[in-house]
Amino acid sequence: MKKCVVLLSGGLDSCTCAAIAKNGGYEVYAMSFDYGQRHKVEVSSARAVADAVGVVEHKVVEIDLRQIGGSALTSDIDVPKDREIGEGVPVTYVPFRNAIFLGFATAWAEVVGAHDVFVGVNAVDYSGYPDCRGEFISAFEKVMNLGTKCGGFRIIAPLLKMSKKEIVLRAVKEGAPIELTHSCYSPVSGKACGRCDSCQLRLKGFLEAGVSDPVEYCD
Amino acid sequence: MKKCVVLLSGGLDSCTCAAIAKNGGYEVYAMSFDYGQRHKVEVSSARAVADAVGVVEHKVVEIDLRQIGGSALTSDIDVPKDREIGEGVPVTYVPFRNAIFLGFATAWAEVVGAHDVFVGVNAVDYSGYPDCRGEFISAFEKVMNLGTKCGGFRIIAPLLKMSKKEIVLRAVKEGAPIELTHSCYSPVSGKACGRCDSCQLRLKGFLEAGVSDPVEYCD
Repeated sequence: MKKCVVLLSGGLDSCTCAAIAKNGGYEVYAMSFDYGQRHKVEVSSARAVADAVGVVEHKVVEIDLRQIGGSALTSDIDVPKDREIGEGVPVTYVPFRNAIFLGFATAWAEVVGAHDVFVGVNAVDYSGYPDCRGEFISAFEKVMNLGTKCGGFRIIAPLLKMSKKEIVLRAVKEGAPIELTHSCYSPVSGKACGRCDSCQLRLKGFLEAGVSDPVEYCD
Repeated sequence: MKKCVVLLSGGLDSCTCAAIAKNGGYEVYAMSFDYGQRHKVEVSSARAVADAVGVVEHKVVEIDLRQIGGSALTSDIDVPKDREIGEGVPVTYVPFRNAIFLGFATAWAEVVGAHDVFVGVNAVDYSGYPDCRGEFISAFEKVMNLGTKCGGFRIIAPLLKMSKKEIVLRAVKEGAPIELTHSCYSPVSGKACGRCDSCQLRLKGFLEAGVSDPVEYCD
Protein backbone atom coordinates (compact mmCIF):
# COMPACT_ATOMS: atom_id res chain seq x y z
CA MET A 1 0.00 0.00 0.00
CA LYS A 2 1.42 3.39 -0.94
CA LYS A 3 2.22 5.80 1.84
CA CYS A 4 1.99 9.56 2.02
CA VAL A 5 2.61 12.35 4.48
CA VAL A 6 -0.21 14.89 4.80
CA LEU A 7 0.44 18.30 6.30
CA LEU A 8 -2.55 18.75 8.57
CA SER A 9 -3.17 22.16 10.11
CA GLY A 10 -6.64 21.30 11.32
CA GLY A 11 -8.34 23.70 8.89
CA LEU A 12 -10.79 23.05 6.09
CA ASP A 13 -8.22 22.71 3.32
CA SER A 14 -5.86 20.27 4.99
CA CYS A 15 -8.80 18.20 6.26
CA THR A 16 -10.03 17.93 2.68
CA CYS A 17 -6.54 16.94 1.56
CA ALA A 18 -6.35 14.21 4.20
CA ALA A 19 -9.68 12.79 3.04
CA ILE A 20 -8.54 12.89 -0.60
CA ALA A 21 -5.35 11.02 0.29
CA LYS A 22 -7.17 8.43 2.38
CA ASN A 23 -9.85 7.87 -0.26
CA GLY A 24 -7.09 7.65 -2.86
CA GLY A 25 -5.84 4.49 -1.17
CA TYR A 26 -2.88 5.87 0.73
CA GLU A 27 -1.65 4.92 4.17
CA VAL A 28 -1.70 8.41 5.64
CA TYR A 29 1.00 9.78 7.96
CA ALA A 30 -0.30 13.11 9.21
CA MET A 31 1.98 15.85 10.47
CA SER A 32 0.97 18.97 12.38
CA PHE A 33 2.90 21.75 14.06
CA ASP A 34 2.57 23.32 17.43
CA TYR A 35 4.59 26.35 16.40
CA GLY A 36 3.51 28.94 18.91
CA GLN A 37 0.56 29.98 16.79
CA ARG A 38 -2.03 32.24 18.33
CA HIS A 39 -4.78 29.84 17.29
CA LYS A 40 -3.19 26.81 18.89
CA VAL A 41 -6.65 25.28 19.16
CA GLU A 42 -6.15 24.20 15.54
CA VAL A 43 -3.78 21.48 16.80
CA SER A 44 -6.68 19.87 18.71
CA SER A 45 -8.72 20.01 15.52
CA ALA A 46 -5.86 18.37 13.65
CA ARG A 47 -5.84 15.53 16.18
CA ALA A 48 -9.59 15.04 15.82
CA VAL A 49 -9.39 15.13 12.01
CA ALA A 50 -6.50 12.65 11.99
CA ASP A 51 -8.54 10.26 14.15
CA ALA A 52 -11.67 10.65 12.04
CA VAL A 53 -9.86 10.15 8.75
CA GLY A 54 -7.99 7.13 10.11
CA VAL A 55 -4.29 7.82 9.76
CA VAL A 56 -1.47 5.38 10.49
CA GLU A 57 0.27 7.93 12.69
CA HIS A 58 -0.18 11.58 13.58
CA LYS A 59 2.95 13.44 14.55
CA VAL A 60 2.69 16.87 16.16
CA VAL A 61 6.05 18.58 15.88
CA GLU A 62 6.89 21.36 18.32
CA ILE A 63 8.85 24.25 16.87
CA ASP A 64 8.75 27.67 18.43
CA LEU A 65 8.30 30.15 15.60
CA ARG A 66 7.67 32.88 18.19
CA GLN A 67 11.47 32.85 18.49
CA ILE A 68 11.51 34.07 14.90
CA GLY A 69 8.40 36.26 15.05
CA GLY A 70 7.52 38.60 12.22
CA SER A 71 3.86 37.58 11.99
CA ALA A 72 0.56 38.40 13.66
CA LEU A 73 0.18 34.66 14.24
CA THR A 74 3.46 34.31 16.16
CA SER A 75 3.85 37.67 17.90
CA ASP A 76 1.74 40.38 19.51
CA ILE A 77 0.84 42.09 16.22
CA ASP A 78 -2.98 42.24 15.94
CA VAL A 79 -4.78 39.97 13.50
CA PRO A 80 -6.58 42.22 10.99
CA LYS A 81 -10.37 42.03 10.93
CA ASP A 82 -12.64 42.80 7.97
CA ARG A 83 -9.58 43.33 5.76
CA GLU A 84 -10.12 43.62 2.04
CA ILE A 85 -8.35 40.48 0.86
CA GLY A 86 -6.08 40.94 -2.11
CA GLU A 87 -4.11 43.96 -0.93
CA GLY A 88 -0.60 42.53 -0.75
CA VAL A 89 0.85 40.06 1.73
CA PRO A 90 -0.91 40.51 5.09
CA VAL A 91 0.69 40.58 8.56
CA THR A 92 -0.60 37.07 9.21
CA TYR A 93 2.06 35.78 6.80
CA VAL A 94 4.45 33.63 8.85
CA PRO A 95 7.93 33.94 7.34
CA PHE A 96 8.73 30.92 5.17
CA ARG A 97 6.39 28.72 7.20
CA ASN A 98 5.45 26.34 4.43
CA ALA A 99 9.08 25.72 3.56
CA ILE A 100 9.79 24.82 7.18
CA PHE A 101 6.72 22.56 7.32
CA LEU A 102 7.59 20.89 4.02
CA GLY A 103 11.14 20.41 5.28
CA PHE A 104 9.96 18.37 8.25
CA ALA A 105 7.37 16.54 6.13
CA THR A 106 10.04 15.51 3.63
CA ALA A 107 12.36 14.28 6.37
CA TRP A 108 9.58 12.17 7.85
CA ALA A 109 8.51 10.90 4.43
CA GLU A 110 12.06 9.74 3.80
CA VAL A 111 12.12 7.86 7.12
CA VAL A 112 8.73 6.14 6.73
CA GLY A 113 9.25 5.38 3.05
CA ALA A 114 6.62 7.71 1.62
CA HIS A 115 7.22 9.52 -1.65
CA ASP A 116 4.13 11.70 -1.84
CA VAL A 117 3.55 14.70 0.39
CA PHE A 118 0.06 16.22 0.38
CA VAL A 119 -0.36 19.88 1.19
CA GLY A 120 -3.59 21.89 1.19
CA VAL A 121 -2.21 25.09 -0.27
CA ASN A 122 -4.54 27.15 -2.39
CA ALA A 123 -3.66 30.10 -4.61
CA VAL A 124 -7.13 31.24 -5.63
CA ASP A 125 -9.20 32.16 -2.56
CA TYR A 126 -6.21 32.84 -0.34
CA SER A 127 -4.54 35.61 1.60
CA GLY A 128 -1.71 36.17 -0.85
CA TYR A 129 0.95 34.21 1.01
CA PRO A 130 3.92 33.65 -1.32
CA ASP A 131 4.52 30.15 0.02
CA CYS A 132 1.10 28.98 -1.19
CA ARG A 133 1.75 29.55 -4.87
CA GLY A 134 2.35 26.87 -7.48
CA GLU A 135 5.80 28.21 -8.41
CA PHE A 136 6.94 27.81 -4.83
CA ILE A 137 5.56 24.29 -4.60
CA SER A 138 7.27 23.22 -7.86
CA ALA A 139 10.57 24.70 -6.75
CA PHE A 140 10.33 22.96 -3.38
CA GLU A 141 9.68 19.63 -5.04
CA LYS A 142 12.96 20.05 -6.89
CA VAL A 143 14.73 20.76 -3.60
CA MET A 144 13.25 17.58 -2.09
CA ASN A 145 14.69 15.51 -4.86
CA LEU A 146 18.13 17.09 -4.72
CA GLY A 147 18.50 17.22 -0.96
CA THR A 148 17.48 13.73 0.12
CA LYS A 149 19.09 10.33 -0.01
CA CYS A 150 16.28 8.52 -1.77
CA GLY A 151 14.68 11.21 -3.98
CA GLY A 152 11.58 10.38 -6.03
CA PHE A 153 9.35 12.77 -4.09
CA ARG A 154 6.23 14.52 -5.28
CA ILE A 155 4.23 17.29 -3.66
CA ILE A 156 0.54 16.78 -4.26
CA ALA A 157 -1.49 19.96 -3.88
CA PRO A 158 -4.96 18.98 -5.06
CA LEU A 159 -6.60 22.25 -3.99
CA LEU A 160 -4.05 24.59 -5.53
CA LYS A 161 -6.27 25.91 -8.30
CA MET A 162 -9.69 25.50 -6.70
CA SER A 163 -11.94 28.26 -5.44
CA LYS A 164 -13.05 27.97 -1.82
CA LYS A 165 -16.49 27.01 -3.10
CA GLU A 166 -14.98 24.12 -5.01
CA ILE A 167 -13.00 23.07 -1.94
CA VAL A 168 -16.16 22.96 0.20
CA LEU A 169 -17.95 20.86 -2.43
CA ARG A 170 -14.97 18.54 -2.72
CA ALA A 171 -14.78 18.19 1.07
CA VAL A 172 -18.42 17.13 1.15
CA LYS A 173 -17.93 14.70 -1.73
CA GLU A 174 -14.93 13.10 -0.01
CA GLY A 175 -16.77 12.85 3.30
CA ALA A 176 -14.08 14.95 4.98
CA PRO A 177 -14.84 15.56 8.68
CA ILE A 178 -15.17 19.32 8.24
CA GLU A 179 -17.24 19.62 11.42
CA LEU A 180 -14.00 19.00 13.32
CA THR A 181 -11.96 21.68 11.58
CA HIS A 182 -10.84 25.06 12.84
CA SER A 183 -9.82 27.84 10.45
CA CYS A 184 -10.02 31.05 12.52
CA TYR A 185 -6.81 32.96 13.30
CA SER A 186 -8.32 34.75 16.25
CA PRO A 187 -10.92 32.63 18.03
CA VAL A 188 -12.95 34.05 20.92
CA SER A 189 -13.92 31.53 23.61
CA GLY A 190 -13.45 28.72 21.15
CA LYS A 191 -15.69 30.28 18.50
CA ALA A 192 -14.50 31.51 15.13
CA CYS A 193 -14.38 35.31 14.84
CA GLY A 194 -15.92 35.43 11.36
CA ARG A 195 -13.83 38.48 10.47
CA CYS A 196 -10.18 37.46 9.97
CA ASP A 197 -9.00 36.58 6.45
CA SER A 198 -9.30 32.90 7.12
CA CYS A 199 -12.89 33.15 8.39
CA GLN A 200 -13.87 35.45 5.54
CA LEU A 201 -12.55 33.04 2.92
CA ARG A 202 -14.14 30.06 4.60
CA LEU A 203 -17.54 31.72 5.01
CA LYS A 204 -17.51 32.84 1.38
CA GLY A 205 -16.75 29.28 0.29
CA PHE A 206 -19.59 27.73 2.26
CA LEU A 207 -22.00 30.45 1.18
CA GLU A 208 -21.20 30.04 -2.51
CA ALA A 209 -21.33 26.25 -2.23
CA GLY A 210 -24.73 26.42 -0.57
CA VAL A 211 -23.43 24.29 2.29
CA SER A 212 -23.98 25.09 5.94
CA ASP A 213 -20.72 25.66 7.82
CA PRO A 214 -20.82 23.31 10.82
CA VAL A 215 -18.44 25.35 13.00
CA GLU A 216 -19.61 27.98 15.48
CA TYR A 217 -19.03 31.69 14.93
CA CYS A 218 -19.25 34.64 17.32
CA ASP A 219 -22.57 36.64 17.25
CA MET B 1 25.80 47.91 7.31
CA LYS B 2 24.72 44.77 5.49
CA LYS B 3 23.33 41.92 7.53
CA CYS B 4 23.58 38.18 7.11
CA VAL B 5 22.46 35.02 8.83
CA VAL B 6 25.20 32.40 9.34
CA LEU B 7 24.29 28.80 10.05
CA LEU B 8 26.68 27.90 12.83
CA SER B 9 26.99 24.27 13.85
CA GLY B 10 30.06 24.82 15.98
CA GLY B 11 32.31 22.84 13.62
CA LEU B 12 35.33 23.93 11.63
CA ASP B 13 33.48 24.79 8.43
CA SER B 14 30.74 26.95 9.89
CA CYS B 15 33.26 28.71 12.15
CA THR B 16 35.29 29.58 9.06
CA CYS B 17 32.13 30.82 7.37
CA ALA B 18 31.28 33.05 10.31
CA ALA B 19 34.76 34.58 10.22
CA ILE B 20 34.50 35.14 6.46
CA ALA B 21 31.16 36.88 6.90
CA LYS B 22 32.39 39.05 9.77
CA ASN B 23 35.60 40.01 7.95
CA GLY B 24 33.51 40.71 4.87
CA GLY B 25 31.84 43.56 6.74
CA TYR B 26 28.54 41.93 7.65
CA GLU B 27 26.53 42.30 10.81
CA VAL B 28 26.31 38.60 11.64
CA TYR B 29 23.18 36.91 12.98
CA ALA B 30 24.23 33.39 13.92
CA MET B 31 21.77 30.51 14.10
CA SER B 32 22.38 27.09 15.63
CA PHE B 33 20.17 24.10 16.31
CA ASP B 34 19.74 21.97 19.35
CA TYR B 35 18.08 19.21 17.36
CA GLY B 36 18.59 16.21 19.56
CA GLN B 37 21.98 15.47 18.03
CA ARG B 38 24.19 12.94 19.72
CA HIS B 39 27.05 15.44 19.77
CA LYS B 40 25.09 18.18 21.47
CA VAL B 41 28.35 19.56 22.78
CA GLU B 42 28.67 21.27 19.39
CA VAL B 43 26.03 23.77 20.53
CA SER B 44 28.37 24.96 23.31
CA SER B 45 31.09 25.32 20.70
CA ALA B 46 28.72 27.33 18.53
CA ARG B 47 28.06 29.70 21.45
CA ALA B 48 31.77 30.16 22.04
CA VAL B 49 32.46 30.72 18.34
CA ALA B 50 29.61 33.23 18.09
CA ASP B 51 31.05 35.18 21.03
CA ALA B 52 34.58 35.09 19.68
CA VAL B 53 33.57 36.18 16.19
CA GLY B 54 31.38 38.95 17.58
CA VAL B 55 27.88 38.41 16.28
CA VAL B 56 24.91 40.74 16.74
CA GLU B 57 22.77 37.89 17.99
CA HIS B 58 23.08 34.14 18.33
CA LYS B 59 19.85 32.20 18.21
CA VAL B 60 19.79 28.55 19.21
CA VAL B 61 16.61 26.98 17.87
CA GLU B 62 15.29 23.84 19.53
CA ILE B 63 13.79 21.27 17.20
CA ASP B 64 13.60 17.64 18.11
CA LEU B 65 14.75 15.69 15.08
CA ARG B 66 14.81 12.54 17.22
CA GLN B 67 11.05 12.59 16.64
CA ILE B 68 11.86 12.01 12.98
CA GLY B 69 14.89 9.75 13.47
CA GLY B 70 16.43 7.94 10.53
CA SER B 71 20.02 8.89 11.36
CA ALA B 72 22.87 7.73 13.57
CA LEU B 73 23.03 11.30 14.86
CA THR B 74 19.40 11.37 16.01
CA SER B 75 18.68 7.77 16.99
CA ASP B 76 20.40 4.79 18.55
CA ILE B 77 22.07 3.66 15.32
CA ASP B 78 25.85 3.47 15.91
CA VAL B 79 28.13 6.09 14.37
CA PRO B 80 30.51 4.27 12.00
CA LYS B 81 34.21 4.40 12.85
CA ASP B 82 37.11 4.13 10.40
CA ARG B 83 34.66 4.04 7.50
CA GLU B 84 36.04 4.39 4.01
CA ILE B 85 34.52 7.74 3.03
CA GLY B 86 33.03 7.85 -0.42
CA GLU B 87 30.89 4.72 -0.28
CA GLY B 88 27.40 6.16 -0.68
CA VAL B 89 25.37 8.18 1.79
CA PRO B 90 26.31 7.10 5.34
CA VAL B 91 23.96 6.47 8.27
CA THR B 92 24.99 9.79 9.80
CA TYR B 93 22.93 11.54 7.10
CA VAL B 94 20.10 13.34 8.90
CA PRO B 95 17.07 13.38 6.59
CA PHE B 96 16.74 16.75 4.84
CA ARG B 97 18.49 18.51 7.72
CA ASN B 98 20.01 21.32 5.70
CA ALA B 99 16.66 22.16 4.14
CA ILE B 100 15.12 22.42 7.60
CA PHE B 101 18.01 24.56 8.84
CA LEU B 102 17.90 26.80 5.76
CA GLY B 103 14.15 27.12 6.24
CA PHE B 104 14.58 28.59 9.70
CA ALA B 105 17.54 30.71 8.59
CA THR B 106 15.51 32.21 5.77
CA ALA B 107 12.60 32.99 8.06
CA TRP B 108 14.91 34.74 10.50
CA ALA B 109 16.72 36.57 7.68
CA GLU B 110 13.39 37.89 6.46
CA VAL B 111 12.52 39.17 9.95
CA VAL B 112 15.86 40.87 10.67
CA GLY B 113 16.19 42.27 7.15
CA ALA B 114 19.14 40.16 5.99
CA HIS B 115 19.34 38.95 2.41
CA ASP B 116 22.44 36.80 2.56
CA VAL B 117 22.55 33.44 4.30
CA PHE B 118 25.97 31.86 4.83
CA VAL B 119 26.27 28.12 5.07
CA GLY B 120 29.45 26.08 5.46
CA VAL B 121 28.51 23.20 3.20
CA ASN B 122 31.30 21.50 1.34
CA ALA B 123 31.02 19.01 -1.49
CA VAL B 124 34.67 17.98 -1.87
CA ASP B 125 35.98 16.50 1.39
CA TYR B 126 32.56 15.52 2.71
CA SER B 127 30.55 12.47 3.69
CA GLY B 128 28.38 12.40 0.58
CA TYR B 129 25.33 14.07 2.10
CA PRO B 130 22.98 15.09 -0.72
CA ASP B 131 22.00 18.33 1.03
CA CYS B 132 25.58 19.60 0.89
CA ARG B 133 25.79 19.70 -2.91
CA GLY B 134 25.77 22.79 -5.07
CA GLU B 135 22.66 21.70 -7.00
CA PHE B 136 20.72 21.50 -3.77
CA ILE B 137 21.94 24.91 -2.60
CA SER B 138 21.01 26.55 -5.93
CA ALA B 139 17.56 24.97 -5.89
CA PHE B 140 16.99 26.08 -2.32
CA GLU B 141 17.93 29.65 -3.18
CA LYS B 142 15.18 29.63 -5.77
CA VAL B 143 12.70 28.40 -3.15
CA MET B 144 13.74 31.23 -0.82
CA ASN B 145 12.94 33.80 -3.44
CA LEU B 146 9.60 32.27 -4.38
CA GLY B 147 8.36 31.50 -0.89
CA THR B 148 9.05 34.72 0.99
CA LYS B 149 7.43 38.14 1.08
CA CYS B 150 10.55 40.17 0.38
CA GLY B 151 12.64 37.87 -1.84
CA GLY B 152 16.11 38.95 -2.96
CA PHE B 153 17.90 36.22 -1.01
CA ARG B 154 21.26 34.66 -1.71
CA ILE B 155 22.87 31.61 -0.19
CA ILE B 156 26.59 32.14 0.18
CA ALA B 157 28.53 28.90 0.47
CA PRO B 158 32.17 29.99 0.30
CA LEU B 159 33.59 26.55 1.14
CA LEU B 160 31.50 24.57 -1.32
CA LYS B 161 34.32 23.69 -3.69
CA MET B 162 37.27 23.75 -1.31
CA SER B 163 39.22 20.77 -0.06
CA LYS B 164 39.47 20.42 3.72
CA LYS B 165 43.09 21.49 3.45
CA GLU B 166 42.01 24.71 1.77
CA ILE B 167 39.35 25.26 4.44
CA VAL B 168 41.92 24.93 7.23
CA LEU B 169 44.23 27.40 5.50
CA ARG B 170 41.34 29.79 4.93
CA ALA B 171 40.28 29.50 8.58
CA VAL B 172 43.79 30.45 9.68
CA LYS B 173 43.93 33.34 7.23
CA GLU B 174 40.58 34.70 8.47
CA GLY B 175 41.59 34.34 12.10
CA ALA B 176 38.63 32.02 12.72
CA PRO B 177 38.55 30.77 16.33
CA ILE B 178 39.07 27.14 15.34
CA GLU B 179 40.33 26.25 18.81
CA LEU B 180 36.72 26.60 19.99
CA THR B 181 35.19 24.30 17.38
CA HIS B 182 33.88 20.78 17.73
CA SER B 183 33.50 18.47 14.75
CA CYS B 184 33.27 14.95 16.21
CA TYR B 185 30.00 13.01 15.88
CA SER B 186 30.83 10.70 18.73
CA PRO B 187 32.92 12.41 21.40
CA VAL B 188 34.24 10.47 24.40
CA SER B 189 34.52 12.46 27.64
CA GLY B 190 34.57 15.67 25.67
CA LYS B 191 37.39 14.55 23.38
CA ALA B 192 37.04 13.94 19.65
CA CYS B 193 37.07 10.25 18.68
CA GLY B 194 39.35 10.70 15.68
CA ARG B 195 37.59 7.90 13.81
CA CYS B 196 34.14 9.07 12.68
CA ASP B 197 33.79 10.58 9.17
CA SER B 198 33.85 14.08 10.54
CA CYS B 199 37.05 13.54 12.54
CA GLN B 200 38.72 11.74 9.64
CA LEU B 201 37.99 14.60 7.25
CA ARG B 202 39.08 17.20 9.75
CA LEU B 203 42.34 15.43 10.62
CA LYS B 204 43.17 14.97 6.94
CA GLY B 205 42.59 18.68 6.35
CA PHE B 206 44.87 19.79 9.17
CA LEU B 207 47.54 17.27 8.21
CA GLU B 208 47.58 18.32 4.57
CA ALA B 209 47.56 21.99 5.53
CA GLY B 210 50.49 21.49 7.88
CA VAL B 211 48.54 23.10 10.68
CA SER B 212 48.25 21.68 14.18
CA ASP B 213 44.66 20.86 15.12
CA PRO B 214 44.03 22.63 18.44
CA VAL B 215 41.25 20.30 19.61
CA GLU B 216 41.85 17.25 21.79
CA TYR B 217 41.47 13.70 20.49
CA CYS B 218 41.23 10.39 22.32
CA ASP B 219 44.50 8.39 22.68
